[in-house]
Amino acid sequence: MANNLLKGKRGIIFGALNDMSIAWKVAERAHEEGAEFVLTNAPIAMRMGAINDLAEKTGSIVIPADATSVEDLEKLIQEAMDHLGGKIDFILHSIGMSPNVRKKKHYTDINYNYYNQTLDVSAGSLHKILATAQKMDALNEWGSVVALTYIAAQRIFPDYNDMADAKSLLESITRSFGYHYGIKKKVRVNTISQSPTVTTAGQGIKGFDEFINFSEQMSPLGNASAVACADYCISMFSDLTRYVTMQNLFHDGGFSNTGVTQQVIERFGSED
Amino acid sequence: MANNLLKGKRGIIFGALNDMSIAWKVAERAHEEGAEFVLTNAPIAMRMGAINDLAEKTGSIVIPADATSVEDLEKLIQEAMDHLGGKIDFILHSIGMSPNVRKKKHYTDINYNYYNQTLDVSAGSLHKILATAQKMDALNEWGSVVALTYIAAQRIFPDYNDMADAKSLLESITRSFGYHYGIKKKVRVNTISQSPTVTTAGQGIKGFDEFINFSEQMSPLGNASAVACADYCISMFSDLTRYVTMQNLFHDGGFSNTGVTQQVIERFGSED
Amino acid sequence: MANNLLKGKRGIIFGALNDMSIAWKVAERAHEEGAEFVLTNAPIAMRMGAINDLAEKTGSIVIPADATSVEDLEKLIQEAMDHLGGKIDFILHSIGMSPNVRKKKHYTDINYNYYNQTLDVSAGSLHKILATAQKMDALNEWGSVVALTYIAAQRIFPDYNDMADAKSLLESITRSFGYHYGIKKKVRVNTISQSPTVTTAGQGIKGFDEFINFSEQMSPLGNASAVACADYCISMFSDLTRYVTMQNLFHDGGFSNTGVTQQVIERFGSED
Amino acid sequence: MANNLLKGKRGIIFGALNDMSIAWKVAERAHEEGAEFVLTNAPIAMRMGAINDLAEKTGSIVIPADATSVEDLEKLIQEAMDHLGGKIDFILHSIGMSPNVRKKKHYTDINYNYYNQTLDVSAGSLHKILATAQKMDALNEWGSVVALTYIAAQRIFPDYNDMADAKSLLESITRSFGYHYGIKKKVRVNTISQSPTVTTAGQGIKGFDEFINFSEQMSPLGNASAVACADYCISMFSDLTRYVTMQNLFHDGGFSNTGVTQQVIERFGSED
Repeated sequence: MANNLLKGKRGIIFGALNDMSIAWKVAERAHEEGAEFVLTNAPIAMRMGAINDLAEKTGSIVIPADATSVEDLEKLIQEAMDHLGGKIDFILHSIGMSPNVRKKKHYTDINYNYYNQTLDVSAGSLHKILATAQKMDALNEWGSVVALTYIAAQRIFPDYNDMADAKSLLESITRSFGYHYGIKKKVRVNTISQSPTVTTAGQGIKGFDEFINFSEQMSPLGNASAVACADYCISMFSDLTRYVTMQNLFHDGGFSNTGVTQQVIERFGSED
Repeated sequence: MANNLLKGKRGIIFGALNDMSIAWKVAERAHEEGAEFVLTNAPIAMRMGAINDLAEKTGSIVIPADATSVEDLEKLIQEAMDHLGGKIDFILHSIGMSPNVRKKKHYTDINYNYYNQTLDVSAGSLHKILATAQKMDALNEWGSVVALTYIAAQRIFPDYNDMADAKSLLESITRSFGYHYGIKKKVRVNTISQSPTVTTAGQGIKGFDEFINFSEQMSPLGNASAVACADYCISMFSDLTRYVTMQNLFHDGGFSNTGVTQQVIERFGSED
Repeated sequence: MANNLLKGKRGIIFGALNDMSIAWKVAERAHEEGAEFVLTNAPIAMRMGAINDLAEKTGSIVIPADATSVEDLEKLIQEAMDHLGGKIDFILHSIGMSPNVRKKKHYTDINYNYYNQTLDVSAGSLHKILATAQKMDALNEWGSVVALTYIAAQRIFPDYNDMADAKSLLESITRSFGYHYGIKKKVRVNTISQSPTVTTAGQGIKGFDEFINFSEQMSPLGNASAVACADYCISMFSDLTRYVTMQNLFHDGGFSNTGVTQQVIERFGSED
Repeated sequence: MANNLLKGKRGIIFGALNDMSIAWKVAERAHEEGAEFVLTNAPIAMRMGAINDLAEKTGSIVIPADATSVEDLEKLIQEAMDHLGGKIDFILHSIGMSPNVRKKKHYTDINYNYYNQTLDVSAGSLHKILATAQKMDALNEWGSVVALTYIAAQRIFPDYNDMADAKSLLESITRSFGYHYGIKKKVRVNTISQSPTVTTAGQGIKGFDEFINFSEQMSPLGNASAVACADYCISMFSDLTRYVTMQNLFHDGGFSNTGVTQQVIERFGSED
């Protein structure tokens, strides 16, 4: 499927680690749809990644940047505009990391320095990207920024730990900055709340297989895949969705509005 | 526990069928807290009920009324004011009935005449009660109206069938009428979204035991009981909550904001 | 803009009255994107409309149907499949009508027969369309159904009257039926909650100009136009959004998540 | 009004600065209802306050504590239990501060060190209080923790600046910790989302008078006062609300579910 939906558009894609990443799929699909873009990731993450293969495949370049560093972001955005030959039309924010999850700290016993890192990397980075872009006047009118989130921002999934708080903060930044950037430049900012997805990031979480299984059975259409999420991102970057802003959009096969399914309830027989 | 919270207040309680009913527990607690009130129920429901025992126990009287009949409601409200000696301070709406559920019609194959009945009895009745009360100027300023609802109004529980639609409509009427009655007379109108409760009504629903079990395990505090719900209704009828209006209030042990619990996830091992 | 997004897809579009209608714009855009479809409207509405011009322009035909009549819907769906040569991929539901609004009945004094009509025409019709389609197995897998709604389903706008209740019911039917049709056939059902739009329907509402003005100033991007809404519908009918279902999607320039704007607050100086 | 609703209960109240503070009103009302409690505030805030008068009036003591310091919180909680003679039953969190607001930094140009302070003081402090209390096993079963918040967590009010993000984070912590503490000890944690209230804190915000005015006209019951909020807090601390947890409860005269009022719309005549 390719419909030239992003023909002539320029973008920056944060967070393509390897071919399991949603950001990786977004890059592939954006390329198919005619976009030109720059890939970026934290220098430390890139050493592990195969991101150069992706760049070659999609005719893009890689510019390393720590998304929590305003200085790095300024450099990234300037180089991206120079390379792409103009202002930016779309940004994907697919960044999340919790040292508390990695170190298996329980939510009720988190390390507060780690907590600050979780919030800064996973949410604050979006504010810094948007503030830097706005100061540099780097986004075209009707530009579209999408950040990936998860329903743990609304409801508790205990193993998601302090990432729930980070995603709530991310969604708030989306609304707050979306308001100001919308009024100033008609730039729109939204989050996509995606089904749990088997990525390298997800694999580290305790009980993740059971969780994917539960989510699959609680979703009338099943869990949405990374590829399907990429399709949805394309629609949000396109001109078809210009008046959608400050929203959190569930892309989850119906999970968010399903209280229980027949398939799940059958596991709760009265003998239990 | 009795704190004279409703001393001097007059009420009308719809829906006490037997001692499993939430409305029954509300009547008992309202009596303990010093309220005087009238009990009412549909003539057809009352033949089955032990409502006269409740009336005797709580010093109240029973006035039969079909809550879908404006004529019956006018008579009820007038007689209630006459009996209680003044305007009304609180109303409990605990009314719900679906012929489609009773006749085991699947949601995708409902009978539309039944559907209209479901909506009229379970939701339209609230509009009629409020409209009749307002026309008769029967509620005191800061009066409080509570209708019982369920989270199926937001998320799908397949066996709940067309009652989900009725509860959504009920909650909309709560907001709509709450707006107008609030501006006109400072009357407040809210819904309480209660845990699934073992009542005579609930017993008829397929898979209800499994469902209660699922809900119990998905609620950090467990399912809320009918007695606990009655306590919450008392707080909403009291003067402690005067500025709460047009709200849907979850009384559910945390179910509504829980995505999954550890206890539930353990049933979804990868062998499944 | 035309990207062949709906190439090979077949649809039914309810509610194109004249060239101010959102459904009219959807038909034009769907045609540009390569879809083939049938137009339909209530026989009584069609006498007033210019719908035949639209049919000619978009290579479609017109099949009159009362959307509250299951018999009419069966005939419509059968003829649409016969004409289009296969099962249906998308449906637009743009139907709403309140006799209480037309007759200027206040919400607290509505006529209950009118109320039932409001609910049946504006919400029940969606259930009937979906139930009829499912029984006839008329929708392809991953088919997409969109109904237009308004934020009055969540928050009160007093002049919207009983249409608020109808839209709440419509959104509940969307979730309920979306659950069942999703599990059974992977059909997805969503509502788009659109900015107030100057259409023939809107023109009848008291204070509509002030209201459009208020909404414009409360939306960071301004009110979304009918044409922009049509674009958004196209994205929802396309394969880019396959895992979005049972959702209410705000297409409103950010109105729904804006508490107040600077422009609005300036009207509330302390001298008032 | 005094009903012994908190008789025998022990509490800690954070944030009573002066007699305009909501926490001050909560202390007065909790005293009337028979509670015993400790007052606390940041050492720096207390120098300005008249908190000793409040302590004398309510038979309580003052224990200074920086709510972002786990060490201070441990000391506070231990001394509170020692003084009150047992475990704690309720906690009020009324803490919020943004250096960005104070220094008039625009949201799109905030200082990130200040931002971290805003989040830590206004939201992180709740996590620290709960984590410290849980580690010390300092709360009785069915204990109730209430934090005050504002609807800017859901919708943008531009002058509220980065406090919107802090309140979103606060509400997320409420859900996350409420889940764990509920399962472990049946402690419940909720936020009350209060009307804008004229306090010393509010006075510093640009355009606050216009904002209070707007909010008053957009609320069917008018803005809720600090005293009314204190009443609502009492109900949440009492045993009447035991199964309410992880919720955000609007105490706002209906503002949150009002799209517009007649009074407001009249300011938007088409001549504008």
